[in-house]
Amino acid sequence: MPNIRVTVWGENLHERSTATVREIYPTGMHQCIADALNAAPGITATTATLEQPSHGLPPGRLDATDVLVWWGHAAHAQVRDDIVDQVCAAVWSGMGAIFLHSAHFSKPFKRLMGTPCNLTWREAGERERLWLTSRSHPIAAGLPDHFELEQEEMYGEPFGIPDPMETVFVSWFQGGEVFRSGVTYKRGAGRVFYFRPGHETYPTYHDANVQKVIVNAVRWARNPAPRIADPGAAPNVPVESALEPITERGPRLHAKGEAGLR
Amino acid sequence: MPNIRVTVWGENLHERSTATVREIYPTGMHQCIADALNAAPGITATTATLEQPSHGLPPGRLDATDVLVWWGHAAHAQVRDDIVDQVCAAVWSGMGAIFLHSAHFSKPFKRLMGTPCNLTWREAGERERLWLTSRSHPIAAGLPDHFELEQEEMYGEPFGIPDPMETVFVSWFQGGEVFRSGVTYKRGAGRVFYFRPGHETYPTYHDANVQKVIVNAVRWARNPAPRIADPGAAPNVPVESALEPITERGPRLHAKGEAGLR
Amino acid sequence: MPNIRVTVWGENLHERSTATVREIYPTGMHQCIADALNAAPGITATTATLEQPSHGLPPGRLDATDVLVWWGHAAHAQVRDDIVDQVCAAVWSGMGAIFLHSAHFSKPFKRLMGTPCNLTWREAGERERLWLTSRSHPIAAGLPDHFELEQEEMYGEPFGIPDPMETVFVSWFQGGEVFRSGVTYKRGAGRVFYFRPGHETYPTYHDANVQKVIVNAVRWARNPAPRIADPGAAPNVPVESALEPITERGPRLHAKGEAGLR
Amino acid sequence: MPNIRVTVWGENLHERSTATVREIYPTGMHQCIADALNAAPGITATTATLEQPSHGLPPGRLDATDVLVWWGHAAHAQVRDDIVDQVCAAVWSGMGAIFLHSAHFSKPFKRLMGTPCNLTWREAGERERLWLTSRSHPIAAGLPDHFELEQEEMYGEPFGIPDPMETVFVSWFQGGEVFRSGVTYKRGAGRVFYFRPGHETYPTYHDANVQKVIVNAVRWARNPAPRIADPGAAPNVPVESALEPITERGPRLHAKGEAGLR
Repeated sequence: MPNIRVTVWGENLHERSTATVREIYPTGMHQCIADALNAAPGITATTATLEQPSHGLPPGRLDATDVLVWWGHAAHAQVRDDIVDQVCAAVWSGMGAIFLHSAHFSKPFKRLMGTPCNLTWREAGERERLWLTSRSHPIAAGLPDHFELEQEEMYGEPFGIPDPMETVFVSWFQGGEVFRSGVTYKRGAGRVFYFRPGHETYPTYHDANVQKVIVNAVRWARNPAPRIADPGAAPNVPVESALEPITERGPRLHAKGEAGLR
Repeated sequence: MPNIRVTVWGENLHERSTATVREIYPTGMHQCIADALNAAPGITATTATLEQPSHGLPPGRLDATDVLVWWGHAAHAQVRDDIVDQVCAAVWSGMGAIFLHSAHFSKPFKRLMGTPCNLTWREAGERERLWLTSRSHPIAAGLPDHFELEQEEMYGEPFGIPDPMETVFVSWFQGGEVFRSGVTYKRGAGRVFYFRPGHETYPTYHDANVQKVIVNAVRWARNPAPRIADPGAAPNVPVESALEPITERGPRLHAKGEAGLR
Repeated sequence: MPNIRVTVWGENLHERSTATVREIYPTGMHQCIADALNAAPGITATTATLEQPSHGLPPGRLDATDVLVWWGHAAHAQVRDDIVDQVCAAVWSGMGAIFLHSAHFSKPFKRLMGTPCNLTWREAGERERLWLTSRSHPIAAGLPDHFELEQEEMYGEPFGIPDPMETVFVSWFQGGEVFRSGVTYKRGAGRVFYFRPGHETYPTYHDANVQKVIVNAVRWARNPAPRIADPGAAPNVPVESALEPITERGPRLHAKGEAGLR
Repeated sequence: MPNIRVTVWGENLHERSTATVREIYPTGMHQCIADALNAAPGITATTATLEQPSHGLPPGRLDATDVLVWWGHAAHAQVRDDIVDQVCAAVWSGMGAIFLHSAHFSKPFKRLMGTPCNLTWREAGERERLWLTSRSHPIAAGLPDHFELEQEEMYGEPFGIPDPMETVFVSWFQGGEVFRSGVTYKRGAGRVFYFRPGHETYPTYHDANVQKVIVNAVRWARNPAPRIADPGAAPNVPVESALEPITERGPRLHAKGEAGLR
């Protein structure tokens, strides 16, 4: 079984500033998620947080990350744009990415989706029930057709995302809303999964079903192919090396061997 | 029949700097495209160019644009980021957007796709043949199953886009490549179409079939719904106004009436 | 404005056999739906029912139908297979098709989807709330972000359909389930929409919002392109008329001019 | 590494009736494909053919098949409908299915797609070049961005399939056509892949790249989840066991405990 290298990125703010959150996640939400992943065979998870240099993602870290898990909420705007660029490029090159809960508004998720990723919300500790909409999907392995979280923040439709490749979960909320709470995408060579639950004032990431989804999603999101070195390269194919013999005709803009415009 | 208000955005650089291009498009590529659109019933097209203040897209212009057509090549980097933000927000609110040829590397297209949008290319004036892959699609109305452009720049796969909602055209190139040359997307309330042909050194936008595709695409991309005022709004739904009666439970992060974090 | 010719197909069984249903729909569910469509500008709706010769779909009827609306429940198995073949062929040729409620198990819907189209269900007159998941979608024109049906049959996920082109509505049910209740597909040149509400013992098709969805869906599903004469044709392209000159090489299975195998 | 059980289904007609085909595939096309699969680690492939009882797919065979590979051409109509039903049900329950070349017109493929699956064709032994359109896709593992088959039958667009989940390959043909030659779908719990090459008069299935695609596709199509016992089941959820307490209201059609209509 291959070893999947996961980096769990967390803001690590509420865990330090809010007693309620600290009590639930004394070592941080990111560490709780990483612990759950490390308990799964074939996965090695480490963490990175906002306050670290380069937000914990210095050069080389993303290259050595098979799947990135991202949780953020209060400090999306503080994430450096050059790091966001690197995260997106890593996804395009083949890194998997899992965005959790309030990361719907994180810079890298919005950039990868190309949409506002907005929704409605209510923080009332109401019941959420997640329904499986794609039977036998690898992300739902070992899960029943539905499971509940007794207390969660509500996120409601319309959710401002592109129509997904697959919808894996849809949530029911006690207060009357629904939400597409598990959706998959491809972006370049990278697989992307958004998973809704995980408000910081509830013990969601201690829930066995939630942990199972995240473990499954990591396995699903891993692309075993070698990482693409330059995922945005747009190489010129010279006339001389065209696969079918052709003769150059007509006017041209580009001098021979010139790089393309971008 | 409704009147569709189109803004054709052009870089207007090669038309002024390169004699070959100027001869083909003496009034500019954008004007040639706008002329073709204005010849179609129910469409009123105007133009905007890079060198104008706010690139020709001052406040109010996008609000009054049903469909934006975008051609750029040499100066993608010069397009102001705040204008790109406004274009994307307009699309999310319901404006249609058509990206032509080298606009695959334009900032707004890359932002809306969430991918590198890269490809391979060759400027040799070779034959391109576009094949219809979605029969009776509105964007192909009045077109045969295939049509040819005797001289075009080659764009080759792999094309770094998300899998489209619909693939409408696939191109064959004389030198041996293929390309998904007509693809549709939804982004928020806006419809997006990418159409490949249109290298500036060839008379592509004078071609009757190409003009027909662009006219059709404008009609397809228009969303008659009222524009969404704030397409990224994420409203809180207070417990008191929940659709099903619920009682607030458990700890909370947000004070009552507080705006959400983003 | 074009005139859209709609045929509303109904089983017309419960309306005759069950007093409750007859009271709600004295002229039949199909007629109730047709009446709502005929009240909309630019739409002319007629009806066809199971007990009529050829189920009301004799030769020529589908050719003269722009959009077919289908409701069935108790007698799916009685629908003749040759009629199902004709309905599918009409869709492939460009006819729109809207399947309502229990038509998820109708022969033509299952044939067009290629999946079992199964679900869970409960007949308890519970509240259903439909949420819009695709803002400003033409099928949701004039509708709020959500609307309610005070009494409906429950349909629950997992719903055995292919991932749709677009998910337009997701339903919340009082008893705790969710359902993708408005989904779009393309099949050949035809647009297909499934819409969940409409259990026969409740006055659902008298509801203004439901009627609006069906009217909108008819407009959306209409393909103005000329109908494709033989949507399954697989023409041979002889070597002599290849678009690029090629010379025949190697062994062949088919004699010259022979029809293809199928 | 898990052992993937593959059944390669072949018509086995041309191999016996046509000398040209027999020379290329002396043990049959199905055996050639099975041999290539058996040479790959973790795959055990056996064969089944049309002329065998139940076409080689007696009760239990599909249950013990993780991935079914299907090649047919001249005798699609001879395949028994009950066997087709069983193949589709197996896919819905989680069996992977790979359809090769002229199997675009096979009964199970058409049933799973819900479309005519038609195309244009020419048997001239021309060059086909397959281009990768989804970088680092598992089905393309170890393959270059393009590869060639010096002699193949041409299949041309428009190809009458639903827009795929992913387009993995697009083919270029010497005579001027293009074709979406590798496309993926989900149908129920089963993954489906169509792969174009494989005309019986050419040695296509001896080609190393083609063999690699089929091996990769088998690995991709395998769903490790337990097979769903009854993939079309539509269970009633009684009011008494609703997840949220509800009270039955209003009229009902179904007597308590009655099976649903289908």
